[in-house]
Amino acid sequence: MDAKTFDAKTLLDSLFDNGILFETGVDGLYGRSGAFEEVIERFEKLVTRLGAPDKATRIHFPPGMSRATLEKSGYMKSFPQLAGCVHSFMGGEREHASLLNMMATGEDWTELQKATNVALTPAACYPLYPTVAARGPVPAEGVLFELSSYCFRHEPSQDPARMQLFRMREFVKIGTAEQVSAFRESWLTRGKAMIESLQLPCDVDLANDPFFGRGGKMMANNQRDQGLKFELLIPVTSIEKPTACLSFNYHQDHFGQTWGLKFADGELCHSACVGFGLERVALALFRHHGPDIEAWPAGVRAVLWGE
Amino acid sequence: MDAKTFDAKTLLDSLFDNGILFETGVDGLYGRSGAFEEVIERFEKLVTRLGAPDKATRIHFPPGMSRATLEKSGYMKSFPQLAGCVHSFMGGEREHASLLNMMATGEDWTELQKATNVALTPAACYPLYPTVAARGPVPAEGVLFELSSYCFRHEPSQDPARMQLFRMREFVKIGTAEQVSAFRESWLTRGKAMIESLQLPCDVDLANDPFFGRGGKMMANNQRDQGLKFELLIPVTSIEKPTACLSFNYHQDHFGQTWGLKFADGELCHSACVGFGLERVALALFRHHGPDIEAWPAGVRAVLWGE
Repeated sequence: MDAKTFDAKTLLDSLFDNGILFETGVDGLYGRSGAFEEVIERFEKLVTRLGAPDKATRIHFPPGMSRATLEKSGYMKSFPQLAGCVHSFMGGEREHASLLNMMATGEDWTELQKATNVALTPAACYPLYPTVAARGPVPAEGVLFELSSYCFRHEPSQDPARMQLFRMREFVKIGTAEQVSAFRESWLTRGKAMIESLQLPCDVDLANDPFFGRGGKMMANNQRDQGLKFELLIPVTSIEKPTACLSFNYHQDHFGQTWGLKFADGELCHSACVGFGLERVALALFRHHGPDIEAWPAGVRAVLWGE
Repeated sequence: MDAKTFDAKTLLDSLFDNGILFETGVDGLYGRSGAFEEVIERFEKLVTRLGAPDKATRIHFPPGMSRATLEKSGYMKSFPQLAGCVHSFMGGEREHASLLNMMATGEDWTELQKATNVALTPAACYPLYPTVAARGPVPAEGVLFELSSYCFRHEPSQDPARMQLFRMREFVKIGTAEQVSAFRESWLTRGKAMIESLQLPCDVDLANDPFFGRGGKMMANNQRDQGLKFELLIPVTSIEKPTACLSFNYHQDHFGQTWGLKFADGELCHSACVGFGLERVALALFRHHGPDIEAWPAGVRAVLWGE
C-alpha cells in the first residue's frame, strides 16, 4: 500500500495480496481477515466509549428487516436502485425438478422464487422507528439509541470502500428539533476528534444522498440547501474524491410523520442520526497506517487497544 | 421465564417483555438487546479461546455470498426451500413510476426486481471452499479455519430458536479423512465440556439435515447410517424436542470433489466442520439462567466474563 497510490483497484488488489480481504467472485462481497475484524471490534468499542456518557439504549438488528416496514419508510421511492429483497423458492417437488433442470441447462431459474417478507436493511436505523412508535408516546427528554447492523446496498463496485454488504453503527436521537440538532452538533465535534485521534486526515462537508432519477436531483439540492446531511470524509481510494466514513443526518419530522412518533402532547418528533461505516473506517486505517496492525503508530494503537 | 414453561411462543413473549428481543413484524427477525449482544460476544470469545491452541486462520464472511458459488455447492438441490437470493430493482425512471404506482395500489411490485449475483449465506463455511481451492494444493497437514457469518434460512417461525437470520461461528478442517475425523472428535468432546461449563443441560445425538422432498428422506437416512452429522442439543423451547445449538459435520469428500480441493499428490481432500449457533446458545443461557445476566450463576459468569 504505497502512500502515493490511491486508486480503488490498486488498493483492493493490495488488500487481497496482504490477506486482509478475500475474494468471493462478486464485486463488493469480500471475506475479512482476523486482523480486519479486530480493527472493527476495537473501533466499535471506541465509538461505544465515546457515546457512553449519553446512556443510549443498545439494539442490534439483523441484516434483514420487514419488507413492509422498508416500503412504508419511503425507501423504494428515494433509493429503489440500492434496495435488496429476499426471494425464496416456495414450490413443491415438481417445481423443484424444473428448477434443477433449468439450472443444469443454464437457464435463469431465479424467477421460480417469490418475494419473502424480508428486505435487506439499508441503514441501521430503518427498523428502529416502528419499534419506538410501538412503545407509545416519546418522553419529553427524547430517546437515544445505539444501533448496529449489517447493511446492503446494490452497487457492485471494485472500490473496496463501496461494499454491497457492510456494517454500520449508529446513534439515533428522537426528540424535539432542538434536541436532535444538539445531538447532531455534539457528534460533528466528537466524530471529527475521534478520527483525528486515529491520525487520519479528514474533513467534514455538506452532502446529499444518492436520490434516484431526475426528481432525485431536486431532492438532493433541497437536502443540501437545508443542511440536512454532513459527511466526514477521509481519502481512501482518491484524494479528490474522499470517502464518506461517518455521516450526520437530520431527518426533520420525516420519520416522525411516517411512523406517528409523538410526544405525550401530540407534537410530532424529529430525528437525527450519526452513522459510522465500519468497513470504511477500517479501510482508511489500513490505507494510511499499513497492512500490519502491529506496526501502526503507537498513538493510534493506544486509542484503539487502550480502553 | 418460568422454569416449567417450555413452549416456543411463551418464551418468545417473555423475551419481548423483558426487552431481550424486539419485534420487527416478521417471524424470525428480531432486534437484540445490548445484554443479548454481550452474551454473544462473550460466548464467541470463549469459543475462540477453546480453539486457540489449534491456530486456525480466522475469516469473517458477510451475510451474502456469490449466487454462482451457492448454486455450484449443490445447496439448491438439497435445501431449495431454505435458500434466499437477493433481488433488486434495475429499471429506469419509467419502471420506477410503475413500481410506485403498484405499491400505491397494493399490487405486487416485487416482480419488477431481478436476481442479483448475491445469495444469502446459508452456513458460514459455504464461501470458504472456493477461497481455499483458489490457493492451490492443500498442504499435507491440512488447513483449519475459524469462520463467522450471519446466515439466512427461510423458515419463518415463532420459535425464537428458529430465526431467519442468525449468526454462526464455525471451525472448518480440510485435510485427509483421518485428519478431519480427529478434528471432529476433538470438538465433540470440547463442545460438550464447554456447554456443561455454562451449566446447561445437553446431549449429543446423531442427526440429519432437512433435505428437501421425498428423495431427501433417503439422503437423510444415508446421512444417519453413515454417522455424518451429530448435534449438541439443549432444551430451549421443549424438553422432548431440544434445540440443536452445536453441530458436528463430516462432509466426506463432497466439497473436495465440488471445488477440486486436492493435496499436492492429487488426492481429494475431505472436510468437516463444527458450527456454533450463537443466537441459540444465547437463548439457552437466558432460558436456563434468567433474563438478568448480572444474576446468572457465578460459575457461568466466570466462564463467560473471566478470560
